[in-house]
Amino acid sequence: MAQYQIDLNSDIGESFGLYTMGLDEDVLKVITSANVACGYHAGDHNTMYETVQTAKANGVGIGAHPGLPDLQGFGRRQIAVSPKDVYRFVAYQIGALNGFCRVHNVEMSHVKAHGALYHMAVNDPAIAAAVAQAVKDVDPKLILFGLSGSELLRAGKNHGLSTASEVFADRTYQPDGTLTPRSEQQAMISDSDEAVKQVLQMIQEKVVTAVDGSTVAIEADTVCVHGDHPRALKFVQHLRSRLNEEGIVIKRVGA
Amino acid sequence: MAQYQIDLNSDIGESFGLYTMGLDEDVLKVITSANVACGYHAGDHNTMYETVQTAKANGVGIGAHPGLPDLQGFGRRQIAVSPKDVYRFVAYQIGALNGFCRVHNVEMSHVKAHGALYHMAVNDPAIAAAVAQAVKDVDPKLILFGLSGSELLRAGKNHGLSTASEVFADRTYQPDGTLTPRSEQQAMISDSDEAVKQVLQMIQEKVVTAVDGSTVAIEADTVCVHGDHPRALKFVQHLRSRLNEEGIVIKRVGA
Amino acid sequence: MAQYQIDLNSDIGESFGLYTMGLDEDVLKVITSANVACGYHAGDHNTMYETVQTAKANGVGIGAHPGLPDLQGFGRRQIAVSPKDVYRFVAYQIGALNGFCRVHNVEMSHVKAHGALYHMAVNDPAIAAAVAQAVKDVDPKLILFGLSGSELLRAGKNHGLSTASEVFADRTYQPDGTLTPRSEQQAMISDSDEAVKQVLQMIQEKVVTAVDGSTVAIEADTVCVHGDHPRALKFVQHLRSRLNEEGIVIKRVGA
Amino acid sequence: MAQYQIDLNSDIGESFGLYTMGLDEDVLKVITSANVACGYHAGDHNTMYETVQTAKANGVGIGAHPGLPDLQGFGRRQIAVSPKDVYRFVAYQIGALNGFCRVHNVEMSHVKAHGALYHMAVNDPAIAAAVAQAVKDVDPKLILFGLSGSELLRAGKNHGLSTASEVFADRTYQPDGTLTPRSEQQAMISDSDEAVKQVLQMIQEKVVTAVDGSTVAIEADTVCVHGDHPRALKFVQHLRSRLNEEGIVIKRVGA
Repeated sequence: MAQYQIDLNSDIGESFGLYTMGLDEDVLKVITSANVACGYHAGDHNTMYETVQTAKANGVGIGAHPGLPDLQGFGRRQIAVSPKDVYRFVAYQIGALNGFCRVHNVEMSHVKAHGALYHMAVNDPAIAAAVAQAVKDVDPKLILFGLSGSELLRAGKNHGLSTASEVFADRTYQPDGTLTPRSEQQAMISDSDEAVKQVLQMIQEKVVTAVDGSTVAIEADTVCVHGDHPRALKFVQHLRSRLNEEGIVIKRVGA
Repeated sequence: MAQYQIDLNSDIGESFGLYTMGLDEDVLKVITSANVACGYHAGDHNTMYETVQTAKANGVGIGAHPGLPDLQGFGRRQIAVSPKDVYRFVAYQIGALNGFCRVHNVEMSHVKAHGALYHMAVNDPAIAAAVAQAVKDVDPKLILFGLSGSELLRAGKNHGLSTASEVFADRTYQPDGTLTPRSEQQAMISDSDEAVKQVLQMIQEKVVTAVDGSTVAIEADTVCVHGDHPRALKFVQHLRSRLNEEGIVIKRVGA
Repeated sequence: MAQYQIDLNSDIGESFGLYTMGLDEDVLKVITSANVACGYHAGDHNTMYETVQTAKANGVGIGAHPGLPDLQGFGRRQIAVSPKDVYRFVAYQIGALNGFCRVHNVEMSHVKAHGALYHMAVNDPAIAAAVAQAVKDVDPKLILFGLSGSELLRAGKNHGLSTASEVFADRTYQPDGTLTPRSEQQAMISDSDEAVKQVLQMIQEKVVTAVDGSTVAIEADTVCVHGDHPRALKFVQHLRSRLNEEGIVIKRVGA
Repeated sequence: MAQYQIDLNSDIGESFGLYTMGLDEDVLKVITSANVACGYHAGDHNTMYETVQTAKANGVGIGAHPGLPDLQGFGRRQIAVSPKDVYRFVAYQIGALNGFCRVHNVEMSHVKAHGALYHMAVNDPAIAAAVAQAVKDVDPKLILFGLSGSELLRAGKNHGLSTASEVFADRTYQPDGTLTPRSEQQAMISDSDEAVKQVLQMIQEKVVTAVDGSTVAIEADTVCVHGDHPRALKFVQHLRSRLNEEGIVIKRVGA
C-alpha cells in the first residue's frame, strides 16, 4: 500500500520593529515549511534573522515569502505592478532571505508568494511567469509553492522548477477547482472537523467536494495553516493528530 | 621594478523609483569597483537589477554598499543602532544584492559600508566587528573595503577577511592618518592636480602629507571617486590618464 | 464684452530627501496654482516647507496634492484602497500641508488629487466621494480640482464644494469629453502651437475638438502645465504670451 | 484649602496597518490627555482617525505626539537630525493630526514629543527650541508637554507657550531632578504602591525624593502613564482611586 505524505506550511516572521505578529515559536513546532516574510509587506532583518534561526532549530523548511512593497497594507492590496517589477522584487526578497540562510548555514527550500501577489499570480500568466523566472534565475533548486491548478504552478512547471501544489483546510472550493472568493458567504470552513475531513479527502482521494456538491480533482502537496492566534494553532495540532491516525506522513516538501 | 596597481571605486545605483541620481552609465566606464546601494539608504530592486547588469557588462567589480535604514537622510545621519542590528541589516543587504548577482550570473566581489555607517565603523570597534562578522558569515570570500587605518579594516583582518584599504583623492589627512572632518576649512582638496598628486604619493610612496606638513604612512588599495556630476566624472578621467602615464595599473581589487 | 480668465496649475514640491525633481523655482514664477506633494507619493517636510514659502512669495495659490502611499511608484500605480482609506489619507495629507501654511501664515486654496488617485477619482464614484468628503470635512472653503466632466467634479459639487474644472493642453480628447488614454497613439499633443490652440478653444469657445473631429463641450477653469524639464517650462511661457495676446486674464481660481 | 489637580497622559494610537499596539480603548477611559502618534514613528491615517474619534468621545484631550522618522525603531533611536529638520517634521506631524481634529470637529489641546526626540529635547537647547518654535508657529494655543525641569519646558516658556510639566510614576529621580537613566539598576519603580506614593508626593508636596534620599523640588502638571499591557492599565486604575481618595482632581491640563 502506497503511503501518503503531506507538508504543512505557514506564513511566519511577520513581525516588524516593535510590532509583533503571530505565535511563531509555537507554530514552528507543528509545521514542516515556513514561509518567511522578507521586509516588503512584513518582517525586517531582525525578524528574519530570528525566524530562520528558529526554523532551522526545528528542522522546518525555510522559504522566502515575497510580497508587494506595501507594509501599510500588509501586502494584501493589489498594486498595479509590471511583470518586470515583480521579477526584480522577487529576486531581491529571495536574495535578502538567503543572506540569513547563509548566516545560519542552512539551505533555503522554497518560495511562496504572499497575499495580493499570490492571488495575482494565480490568474495572471505574466505575473506568474515573472515569479517563476525570478525563482529559477536566483536558484533553480528552490521549490515553487502555488495554489492547486493556478497559473503560478503552471509557470513553475514551464520553467522547469519543482513545484508544490497548495491546498487549504479552511476554504471551500468552486466546481472549477478555484477557491470560493472570501466575499461569498460559504467561503470559509469554520468547523474544525469538516476542515480536517476536506484535507484528508484531498490527500487520500485526490479530489475535493466543491460548494455545489460536485467532485473536483485536486493535487495536495502542502496544506496552508495559520498561527496568528491560539485557535489556529489548536487546529494545526488537531489536524496533525488526525493525519497521524490516518497514517499520513507529515514531511516537508522536497525532504 | 615592482609595478604599482590601484582600484578605483565609486558609489552607484543610488536612484530610487522615479528619482534619479548619479551618472551611473558613465561612471561604470571609468571605475573598477562599484559599490551598489541596496535599498536601505538608496537604490531599489529596479536600480539594483540594472546596475549589476551594467557593471558586469563593463567588467567592473560588484560590491554591496549597505547603509543605515534611512532613505530620507540618504544614510548620512548617524542613528543609534546596536551592533546586533548592524550585523543583521548588513546581512540583509548583502543578501539582497546577491539575488541580482545570481540573476546576472556574476560573483559579488566586495562590501563597502555607506555614509554614516561607514563613519561609525571607522571609530567604533563594536560596529566595525558587526560589519566584518556579517560579511564573513554571508560570504567569507568577499573583500571588505574600509578607510585606511580604521577600526573597520582592523576588524576585517581580525575576522580573516581580505580587505582593501581605501584612500581619498579629494580629502586632506590629519597627522594621525584620519580624514580631516568636513566641518574644518581645509577638509577638501578642490584643485584637481593637487588631488591627483596626493593619490600618486599614496600609491608610489605609501605616505600622505598631512595638513600640518608631516608625512603619514598610508596604505592605498582603492581610491574613492565620485560620479554624481560631470565635473566629478571629468576628474576620474583625468586621474586615470595620470595613473596611466605613471605606469600604475588600474585594476580591481582581488582580480 | 465678457473677459475670459484662466488658472495655470502645476504639480510641484516632489523632491524627497536628497532626491530633487522639477524646476520648482522657475515654475512657481509662471503658474497661478501649485499642487504641493504631501509626503505619500513624493515630497517630504523639508520640500513642503520650502515649497509653501516660495509659492507664497510668488503669490501662487497653494493646494494639497494628496497621493497614494507609494513613494516607490510615485503614486502612479493603482492600489486597491478602500474609500474609507482614501478619505483618511486625504485628510492626513491636507492636514500635513496645512501645518506649513500656518507656519508661513498663508491660506491653503485648493486640493488636487495626484496620479493614480486622480484617475481613480475620475471614474469611481465611491473614491470620488471619499476625496470630496475629506476635503469638505477638513476645510469646506478649499476648492476641489478635478478633470472636466469627471466623477470627482460631480462629487465635489454634490458635497457643496467650490470646484475647478481642469483641462489639459498636451492631451487629446475623446468624443465623450474624456482624455484619450496614454496607451493610444494620438493621446499626446506634442506640437506646441496646437496645444496652445486647444487651450484657447477650450477657454474662448468652451468646446474641444475630439480625436474624431467632433466638437465636445468642456469647461476650462484651470490648465494643467508641467515643470519637470526646461522644454515644459518653455511651453508655459509660450502659453502665457498667447493668453496675454488674446486678452485672457491669467489668475488663480478663487482669487 | 487649595485643591490639587493633575492630568494623566498616555501615548496612544501607535498601531500601524495590521499591526496593533496598546489597549487604546481601555486607556482612553482612564486618562485625561492622549498623545497621538502621527505616522513618523508609529500610527497611520487609519489609527489617527479612530484614535481622535475615540478620544473625543471620552472627553480626553487630544495631543500630537511627533516622533523621529523611524517606524523600524519606533522613534526610540537617536538620529542626528538638525534643528531645522526637527522644526519642519514637528510642523508636519501636528498639521497631519489636526486634519483629523477638523474632521472630528474637536480642538487639539497639546503636543508631546516622542521617544528619542523627547529625550533629545530634554538636554539639547537647539532641539528644544525647534520643537517649541514649530508648536508656536503652527498653533500658539497648543500646550507644550515636557519633562519637569527640561530644556524643552524652558524653550516652551521662552516662546510664550503654555506648558505642562510632566512627571513619571514609575521612574526614579536623580538629585538634580532628572530621571535616572534606564541603564541604571534603580531606574524603575516596580512596586505599585511606591509609584503612587511618589506621585502623591510630587503633587501635594511639590518635591520628589531622589535616589540618594535627598528631596528635590518638582512641578507636576501631568503624570505619564502607560496602556500597553493589562498590568499598566491596572496601575492607572489604582492610581486614579488613590488620587480620588486624596481629593486630588483628575482633570486635563488647560481644561
